[in-house]
Amino acid sequence: MDIGGTSTVALALDPAGQVEAEIQLPTLKGTQGLLDTVERAVAGLTERSGRDRAEFTSLGIGIPGQIDHELGMVQHAYNIGIDSLALGPLLQERLGIPVSIDNDVTAAAIGAAHLMHLEGTTAYLNLGTGLAAGCVIDGLPVRGAHGITGEIGHLAIDPLLRQCPCGQKGCLETVASGSALTSFWRPDASGHLLMTAVAAGDPEATHALEQLIAGAATAVRLLVLTLDPHSLVIGGGLRLLGEPLISGIRENLDRSAAVSPFLASLEINSRIRILPEDSSAAAVGAALSYQS
Amino acid sequence: MDIGGTSTVALALDPAGQVEAEIQLPTLKGTQGLLDTVERAVAGLTERSGRDRAEFTSLGIGIPGQIDHELGMVQHAYNIGIDSLALGPLLQERLGIPVSIDNDVTAAAIGAAHLMHLEGTTAYLNLGTGLAAGCVIDGLPVRGAHGITGEIGHLAIDPLLRQCPCGQKGCLETVASGSALTSFWRPDASGHLLMTAVAAGDPEATHALEQLIAGAATAVRLLVLTLDPHSLVIGGGLRLLGEPLISGIRENLDRSAAVSPFLASLEINSRIRILPEDSSAAAVGAALSYQS
Repeated sequence: MDIGGTSTVALALDPAGQVEAEIQLPTLKGTQGLLDTVERAVAGLTERSGRDRAEFTSLGIGIPGQIDHELGMVQHAYNIGIDSLALGPLLQERLGIPVSIDNDVTAAAIGAAHLMHLEGTTAYLNLGTGLAAGCVIDGLPVRGAHGITGEIGHLAIDPLLRQCPCGQKGCLETVASGSALTSFWRPDASGHLLMTAVAAGDPEATHALEQLIAGAATAVRLLVLTLDPHSLVIGGGLRLLGEPLISGIRENLDRSAAVSPFLASLEINSRIRILPEDSSAAAVGAALSYQS
Repeated sequence: MDIGGTSTVALALDPAGQVEAEIQLPTLKGTQGLLDTVERAVAGLTERSGRDRAEFTSLGIGIPGQIDHELGMVQHAYNIGIDSLALGPLLQERLGIPVSIDNDVTAAAIGAAHLMHLEGTTAYLNLGTGLAAGCVIDGLPVRGAHGITGEIGHLAIDPLLRQCPCGQKGCLETVASGSALTSFWRPDASGHLLMTAVAAGDPEATHALEQLIAGAATAVRLLVLTLDPHSLVIGGGLRLLGEPLISGIRENLDRSAAVSPFLASLEINSRIRILPEDSSAAAVGAALSYQS
């Protein structure tokens, strides 16, 4: 399951990792809402797959926030109304099967590497409401010490020094994320609105897109220089802006490589893959994460 | 062996990883010089350890540059006069034992994690002539796709926008490295000179130290937000500046945590370890890297 602030995507995978059934439903907030959402999703998958509930052998969940995978703890998942919850143990008791909890971006990285058949090191850059990354090395996710692997959106390096809700100024997330668009362009920002305004020559929209591109390209360089991944997958809702964003990022990377033989030798652009539009990477990765 | 631009440190380790013999000798440059250096080091270790040469079962080398560990290739090790060399195969033929080649910072990360008994994920930040990092997860180094894992010194994010030899402007290495001190403070810069000048109230020296501290603290935050390591080891020659540098980095991290509950929750300062002054982490890590 990929549990997001608005909706939850749940999949039933067969032992070979093929999707048997899928359901999407609204995410109910708070502890009770979250538990109800999961139970409704399981019931829906039982119905759609025609499988007996006893045939479900494990449950994997990708969810925003700071996750302790070993304890199944979720912290700071504010957009689901959760401050701190032992989600794994609670669900395990209710459902009677092993439950694995991962950060949603880590789950998406696992799923993307699996679905896109990527080997070696895969870095996953999520351009969504927030900006974050995940990393999978030879099929295994890098989960880190405190469940905050890949929180590069809160590296405060942007010269605009915009105030971030985290308290710092200039976090990458304040320029290259959906929340940056709603906070600093317009509160009702959407990808469609942005591209329409850019097409109409709106200078503020153009500036917002330029910032988004520059911040995303910086995030790509950061991930390549730190992790040296074989593949770097761009996912998250903002990728659906499509060519203007993606070609903008590629051109930015080309410009930096043009002045630096070192950067050019890294062939960053050739490592980039875009997550397909209809991919359920996070839900698939969550389901697989019980084994990894 | 830890082969540096000036000198080479070679160790003989017993099967349990204990040091049996150690030798330090000048690094001779170019292909022939490099091969001669290694052979002289092996001869010296044979003598000092009292072991027969046939008892040496493998050789591990840490060396600057872009390394293809699988092929034993060294590229761009300019301070040793090497542009591109199949060092591993050449040495394997000459010595008749398996040879493992790693980047020197990666080797130091392996050695530091081993010598300091660090578990989980260890990030290693090398504050030396250059600025670079290494990463070890559960004893295994992250080597990446193109042998450039941890080259964070060339992330161009510093607002001073100083020209970097790599072609970019504002690379972290242009403020937080030994080469930054010689390029932008004074050509004869040394740690001792810097600290003497700072103590005498020299404003340019003070500025250079402040930049060094700020850049190093940014590198620490970058590594923690990307890799979420259990431990972050600061190594490299500049760490020998001691307390003024280390406490400066810690205070910078505290200041950023003071404005950001999120950063504060990461407890970055408590993850920091300083590589002991007399550590041969890179040579030990290189020797161990044949197994990892």
